[in-house]
Amino acid sequence: MKKLIFLCLFEAISGLSSPMDDYLADREVLLAQELELSLGWGLSLSPEEEVMNELLTMEKDKEMDLSFNNARFPPSASFLETKPAYENSTVFQMLKTLPKGGILHIHDISMTSIDWLIKNATYRPNLFVRTVDDKTDFRFMSSAESEEWQSVAFLRERLGAPQYDQYLRRLLTMELDANERYETINDVWNQFTSCLGTAFGIIAYKPVWRDYYEQALKELLDDGVQYVEVRSTLPPVYDLDGSSLNPLEVALVYKEVSDKFAEENSEWCGAKLIYAPTRHASESTIEQDLENALLLKQEIPEFFAGFDLVSQEDKGFPLIDFLGPLLEAGEDIDFFFHAGETDWDWSSTDLNLVDAMLLNTSRIGHGYAIDKHPQLMEMARLKDIPIEVCPISNQVLGLVADIRNHPASSLVKSSFPLVISSDDPPVWGALPMSHDFYAAFLAIGGDSADLRFLKQLILNSFHYSKMGTVEKTTCTAKFENKWKKSIKRILYNYYQSLSILQSIKRTLYNYYPSLIIW
Amino acid sequence: MKKLIFLCLFEAISGLSSPMDDYLADREVLLAQELELSLGWGLSLSPEEEVMNELLTMEKDKEMDLSFNNARFPPSASFLETKPAYENSTVFQMLKTLPKGGILHIHDISMTSIDWLIKNATYRPNLFVRTVDDKTDFRFMSSAESEEWQSVAFLRERLGAPQYDQYLRRLLTMELDANERYETINDVWNQFTSCLGTAFGIIAYKPVWRDYYEQALKELLDDGVQYVEVRSTLPPVYDLDGSSLNPLEVALVYKEVSDKFAEENSEWCGAKLIYAPTRHASESTIEQDLENALLLKQEIPEFFAGFDLVSQEDKGFPLIDFLGPLLEAGEDIDFFFHAGETDWDWSSTDLNLVDAMLLNTSRIGHGYAIDKHPQLMEMARLKDIPIEVCPISNQVLGLVADIRNHPASSLVKSSFPLVISSDDPPVWGALPMSHDFYAAFLAIGGDSADLRFLKQLILNSFHYSKMGTVEKTTCTAKFENKWKKSIKRILYNYYQSLSILQSIKRTLYNYYPSLIIW
Repeated sequence: MKKLIFLCLFEAISGLSSPMDDYLADREVLLAQELELSLGWGLSLSPEEEVMNELLTMEKDKEMDLSFNNARFPPSASFLETKPAYENSTVFQMLKTLPKGGILHIHDISMTSIDWLIKNATYRPNLFVRTVDDKTDFRFMSSAESEEWQSVAFLRERLGAPQYDQYLRRLLTMELDANERYETINDVWNQFTSCLGTAFGIIAYKPVWRDYYEQALKELLDDGVQYVEVRSTLPPVYDLDGSSLNPLEVALVYKEVSDKFAEENSEWCGAKLIYAPTRHASESTIEQDLENALLLKQEIPEFFAGFDLVSQEDKGFPLIDFLGPLLEAGEDIDFFFHAGETDWDWSSTDLNLVDAMLLNTSRIGHGYAIDKHPQLMEMARLKDIPIEVCPISNQVLGLVADIRNHPASSLVKSSFPLVISSDDPPVWGALPMSHDFYAAFLAIGGDSADLRFLKQLILNSFHYSKMGTVEKTTCTAKFENKWKKSIKRILYNYYQSLSILQSIKRTLYNYYPSLIIW
Repeated sequence: MKKLIFLCLFEAISGLSSPMDDYLADREVLLAQELELSLGWGLSLSPEEEVMNELLTMEKDKEMDLSFNNARFPPSASFLETKPAYENSTVFQMLKTLPKGGILHIHDISMTSIDWLIKNATYRPNLFVRTVDDKTDFRFMSSAESEEWQSVAFLRERLGAPQYDQYLRRLLTMELDANERYETINDVWNQFTSCLGTAFGIIAYKPVWRDYYEQALKELLDDGVQYVEVRSTLPPVYDLDGSSLNPLEVALVYKEVSDKFAEENSEWCGAKLIYAPTRHASESTIEQDLENALLLKQEIPEFFAGFDLVSQEDKGFPLIDFLGPLLEAGEDIDFFFHAGETDWDWSSTDLNLVDAMLLNTSRIGHGYAIDKHPQLMEMARLKDIPIEVCPISNQVLGLVADIRNHPASSLVKSSFPLVISSDDPPVWGALPMSHDFYAAFLAIGGDSADLRFLKQLILNSFHYSKMGTVEKTTCTAKFENKWKKSIKRILYNYYQSLSILQSIKRTLYNYYPSLIIW
């Protein structure tokens, strides 16, 4: 479709000026203006990037045309059903191998694959399980605390490992069988909360906690992510002896693992921590949380990014409830507030957007509802405060069915400040970034999105991160390096497969000259 | 939630200026600014309207709170499933009795209830039916043209009238049984097109055509609509003798019925015609159509509003294909183009928005995708060109699942020019305007929408109509009159029911003073 512009331009300048020529010239200008406003359109590409862009948009156009014709566009229906369609896509496979910048919105106990959690963590000794009132809890202990608790090793042996692991998968993910559906958004959130609650007991065991996070970093880097800001509640990570870590100690585990990982992986830019305790708390608890945050800032200033509050916003406890302590702490601490993750206009969740903005948040977690607040949008643009868009999370958690209707699809058309992130990818079986990038590319970027759109998202993720100037420069260089290499590799593989095809064709033709199949 | 503002204002002015006071004052200003931008907020209400507004928003808040708590908000799921929930609503019942302005986007063969069509039109003599390749056609004829055709009267008698009428209802509406679902947007459009195609043979019979339109006007007025602009293909309306009407003759039937109806109904403001032949045609056909349009303008200038092209836009034949003839005709004829009824970015449907705008359309039919075109939005505001938003149509026809995600929900927050309309209400069993008004009020208007939002929508429907200045003045007076009466009636009934309740309470208390149940 973009070709139409150039055709029109050609017609417009080639003939004498007629009403139709004038019209086509106006049309050309208007379309060009629209494109110039859109996210990434201002970037210029190197010759190699240009070739990559040709290839990528060719494949993307093919997939879009196919989806248009068969009316099955993967990001238009729940990711729980369309994940295989994502993975069948050539564009997805390309995106998978490309770098994808930093993840600025992901949570502590949902950043490592469920496969690893099951195959690695739950196979460790001393894991027990109990089910009370439909709620299943796991906990590592030296021996069963009471009769309710049963040994996981024992149950696995009795049921058979494949069966037991499948049972665990059902507990830990939102996956559904073919004919199942979540009835309401409350059912969705119940299952989501239950997945996290169940996983918590396994992950919050000190040896697992460390390994889980280390594995997360590996999986991030494997998926082309080079930087992360983790939101963590910094919970009381426990050990077999009954002891548990305080928030600073948990943060130090994170820092230690992060430092080690950065040392061992030269492509990695680093990690930072957003301390994000639950919002379902009293004012005095939040005051204590903010004191912890100050302590973290004092002790690990370069690792600590700032503060947020988590848990389903629609259940209440809005920012305004904690205005006193937040206003005070705002002098010293950067905020990264969740706000507006809702379809409910002017609900307390929606109004969190107002308070996040007035409390000078550095970024807005989700900000899904911001398009219903023209003044806040204006402020966000002026103050360069981005929203952290998590397309698949918003879809799975019931905010929007077709990602083309995500407010971000409109916002990118005028380069509103935003980054793409993944929130809790393992809960719905997504990779750390690839699936969300694919959804963003096809359904949020729309037709005009090309390599520049992707690169701009990546640059945004660094720009809006809590990295310092030097860190950003180093990280951007690491990215550029990896980016160039990946593009070379994709192009090499692509042209090699083409030339293999050519040589097969030539060979066939030598044997059967009458056979013209290409 | 709106009460919070006043609370904050109170706090802000009541104490000494502290950081928190300053914050709350800023917050108050920001929220007020947001509200002032939103559709209808600028209207002032009479004392009686104020009382009505209190009552309406009280009931609306109740329904919104209930929906929030049980996670079942009627406009968030397909109207085909939630229609009974709409009708259970007190707010819906109030909207039903209130005037609702004019309908500016409705189609010729889908503006009268299917009940009337079945009970009245299909019971007339000489109706025959045939089914070829899964396609069922109806036609009135003096006798069966060939063996394929069977008499409807005969079939109805053989099957039993209730069974046969139920079969007709399945053919003529998109209604589904409890466990059925449309798989893709193509299935949806196939059934929609099939409904219209099946209805066409019944409605395009000259005696039915006239009565169908007359009945439509009755149903519109019954539903509180006072003005309509009908889009019609002006098809060859046929008679038993094999003759058929040309477009001008069909238009004259419309005019005659409209004039008669206006004479007999003093509350009615009038009707106008938008000639809207199919876009799936050759350039020469469109040229002929435009000549017809010119003839209509010449013959019935006060009744003829302008020109549009119809049929599923996503199937091609965009405006740009007919640029030559349209540019030329645009000198003389007003356009009301369908454009952007799609989720497909930069598809030919999407780009119809560009051409509609450049061809100086008076309004945009649907304009669903306009929020992805910042330049076009700017132009539409500057030139005061509204989009005709049809919320339930967009939902049923697969563009958006939850109407809160309809782009209009964002646009009303900054008073973007728009009207609400209903497109093809009988096909999904909706009233001419009430159901769409309810969806617009709760899901597009959101929390802040009150009586002023509704009144502004109504005033918009007159402002953006093709009525002349005098017509608009007369019509607005008719509306104000009806509006006042309806509000009086609603308030009277409401307070009477309250006082009946009071008197029952008093009587009970006289007999059983110990019984305190209220």
